[in-house]
Amino acid sequence: MIQPRTFKGARDFLPEQMLHRERILDTMRTVFKKYGYAPVETPAIEYLDVLTGKYGEEADRLIYKLNYKTGTKDEAALHYDLTVPFSRMVAMNNDLAMPFKRYQMQPVWRADRPQPHQGRFREFYQCDVDCVGSSSMLIEAELIAITYEVLNGLDIPDFLIKINNRKILNGITQYIGLDNNFVGDVCVSIDKLDKVEWNEVAKELKDKNIHTTSIDKLHDLLTQKLNLTQLKSALAEIEIAQEGIAEIEEIFYYLQILGIPEQYFTFDIALARGLDYYTGPIFETKLPKHPHIGSLNGGGRYNGLIASFGGKDLPSVGTSLGLDRIFTAMQQLNLLSEVKTSTQVLVGNFGADTLDASLKLVKELRANGINTEFYPEATKMKKQFSYCDKKQIPFMAILGSEELAQNKITLKVMKTGLQNLIDFNELLEKLA
Amino acid sequence: MIQPRTFKGARDFLPEQMLHRERILDTMRTVFKKYGYAPVETPAIEYLDVLTGKYGEEADRLIYKLNYKTGTKDEAALHYDLTVPFSRMVAMNNDLAMPFKRYQMQPVWRADRPQPHQGRFREFYQCDVDCVGSSSMLIEAELIAITYEVLNGLDIPDFLIKINNRKILNGITQYIGLDNNFVGDVCVSIDKLDKVEWNEVAKELKDKNIHTTSIDKLHDLLTQKLNLTQLKSALAEIEIAQEGIAEIEEIFYYLQILGIPEQYFTFDIALARGLDYYTGPIFETKLPKHPHIGSLNGGGRYNGLIASFGGKDLPSVGTSLGLDRIFTAMQQLNLLSEVKTSTQVLVGNFGADTLDASLKLVKELRANGINTEFYPEATKMKKQFSYCDKKQIPFMAILGSEELAQNKITLKVMKTGLQNLIDFNELLEKLA
Repeated sequence: MIQPRTFKGARDFLPEQMLHRERILDTMRTVFKKYGYAPVETPAIEYLDVLTGKYGEEADRLIYKLNYKTGTKDEAALHYDLTVPFSRMVAMNNDLAMPFKRYQMQPVWRADRPQPHQGRFREFYQCDVDCVGSSSMLIEAELIAITYEVLNGLDIPDFLIKINNRKILNGITQYIGLDNNFVGDVCVSIDKLDKVEWNEVAKELKDKNIHTTSIDKLHDLLTQKLNLTQLKSALAEIEIAQEGIAEIEEIFYYLQILGIPEQYFTFDIALARGLDYYTGPIFETKLPKHPHIGSLNGGGRYNGLIASFGGKDLPSVGTSLGLDRIFTAMQQLNLLSEVKTSTQVLVGNFGADTLDASLKLVKELRANGINTEFYPEATKMKKQFSYCDKKQIPFMAILGSEELAQNKITLKVMKTGLQNLIDFNELLEKLA
Repeated sequence: MIQPRTFKGARDFLPEQMLHRERILDTMRTVFKKYGYAPVETPAIEYLDVLTGKYGEEADRLIYKLNYKTGTKDEAALHYDLTVPFSRMVAMNNDLAMPFKRYQMQPVWRADRPQPHQGRFREFYQCDVDCVGSSSMLIEAELIAITYEVLNGLDIPDFLIKINNRKILNGITQYIGLDNNFVGDVCVSIDKLDKVEWNEVAKELKDKNIHTTSIDKLHDLLTQKLNLTQLKSALAEIEIAQEGIAEIEEIFYYLQILGIPEQYFTFDIALARGLDYYTGPIFETKLPKHPHIGSLNGGGRYNGLIASFGGKDLPSVGTSLGLDRIFTAMQQLNLLSEVKTSTQVLVGNFGADTLDASLKLVKELRANGINTEFYPEATKMKKQFSYCDKKQIPFMAILGSEELAQNKITLKVMKTGLQNLIDFNELLEKLA
């Protein structure tokens, strides 16, 4: 006999979870469409070379490979995110109307160490919104507004959208006396700062042969907690940093017109994002009161990625909402009511005498759009009640021989136990 | 540079396909819920030993394995269908309220030879509805009614739900003088009959050391095209066949009460279904006028599967609607209208002077539930019109300095080219 078990870091979802997950996805879909984004999908399986070399070395090691033509150019793997496959798709489709605005909600896979309490799994859903073909900061603002509207629509309190710019991080790299080759190292180190202590980050930078003077200068800058205006003067000499700061200011201006409340977003110099492909503004949403829960979303501008597939050099920006992080957060914040079914009424089964009439009732209820179950066996009423109760179906409709004789139905309200003899039209009214 | 390409047998879906696919999934979800089914999901990745030994040898060879702990008990693979993972899930959850009715819509993977024109791919969506914990033929009838309601709801004409029973096929195996060990061989052969000629099937049976007398008797029975009543007397002596026929008659009785039109379902003695795990009624939907398109759905009763994971021996029955087959059929039947977006209106961008006012208009439209895009660059009007046209967005709203001065908006109907100067409330009315 085979031991039934789920793959480590992956999960089953029963209706009590799925009904909420479907609601979260529906909320996102509605908001995405409201902002003019249209759905796309790419396959879970991609050729390995399509995926590697875009995320950075650490991430590349976490890609799940298939046991398929290993070592050839046809070696295949499971996608690690949706951004790279989407860029591949855009590079293959030259006639898309630009700007091309899409959303994409699919599972992705990472051979990571699972940490369920933090909402970190090996198989999880990303819900991405991206716009290709525009350099306007209006798009960044729109994506941040979408993030706000989704999380607010799900009644998640006190989230904070942190915003930074890779151009500022480039500028900082210059400012501390390092050339462009070190930008990646600096980003990866800063990115770890919310998980590990400065000492550890400093050691990592030292191991990469970065001089102590530079490390100290970086430490100084990060610990000063400068606001945007202060940073602007601190990095006055550095052109790329000024450009990055101006972009953030522009985004903030649009967010204000769009009516996004100020307490929900902030500039954060220590936000870096781990992935290699970002080139401009970056963003990430945290729950400051629940720091152990990972980011609820993350994204940014990645202008060079599509060109890396030989496509036109199209400016791109996107954000990825993590269904599983959001779901974990909502669970831990007690935002998920107990729900096990969307069935509105169970029709009881009293056996042969009333089977035809009951089944006709079931048919009529469904034809009127009422989610209806018919108990499939003519077992004891007690058992049927208890099923209705356990499944939290709000009503039970009873059509026994007495009811049939009177052309009526008994409707039992499960919560109160009260029951009434009513006709079909009254039944429809009560259930609607 | 990496050649951008999709994995063989897998596909990208652009908005013009995805908007239809989402609609098909929504239709299914609505019908599934109307019949009292609730959503579940299982991971794409399963341990290999959970999957193998249930489908039959031919199918087992088509399972995609990951390059993960190969040769150990932790070897992992992509799920081949949703029925086996669902049975594994049920075996692991002892406290489900029975009968447990679930739907599950996810991609599955098969290392098969892709045949796009037939709707056969290596990565495709199955949309499963299953009920565990009831032996009543009411469930079979309900699943067939669901199939009818989904396909009818999608305006697919002339589909035919074929129904048979593994018990009848067992009976036929006895009738032609073979013992139970040959049921699988007989099923696999019959199952191939709609793809290959009888000669080929006969040869396959001969290769399995089945005597010519048995093969000829099988041929006779299949070519007589008996209806259910005729078959009943032909197999009068064979108890298991009588049981199977009685079940089909019961299902047909319920289908009639449920109001499913007779021309949409039929008994088919030559329906066998390839998978090993079926034990009772089986069903499959075809488009008889388009025989090259594979089955739109398939399912049946599989009473022993959950017990094979050490769970209780729970009677189970389910059906799987193939999104990709249905989508392929609808494409080939010209049932898919041209649609590229769900955006209702594009607000033009006239640059700095009216940017704030335009962005506020965009915000207000969205707040009123109108799917609205704002053109992100202040380019020539002609370019913005042409974008609106190419994306098939029905309306364009223009808020230039003239409109701003009058506190009005120009609304252009893209189809006719007509435009009107109106105020915001009129705009809302026109767009709603």
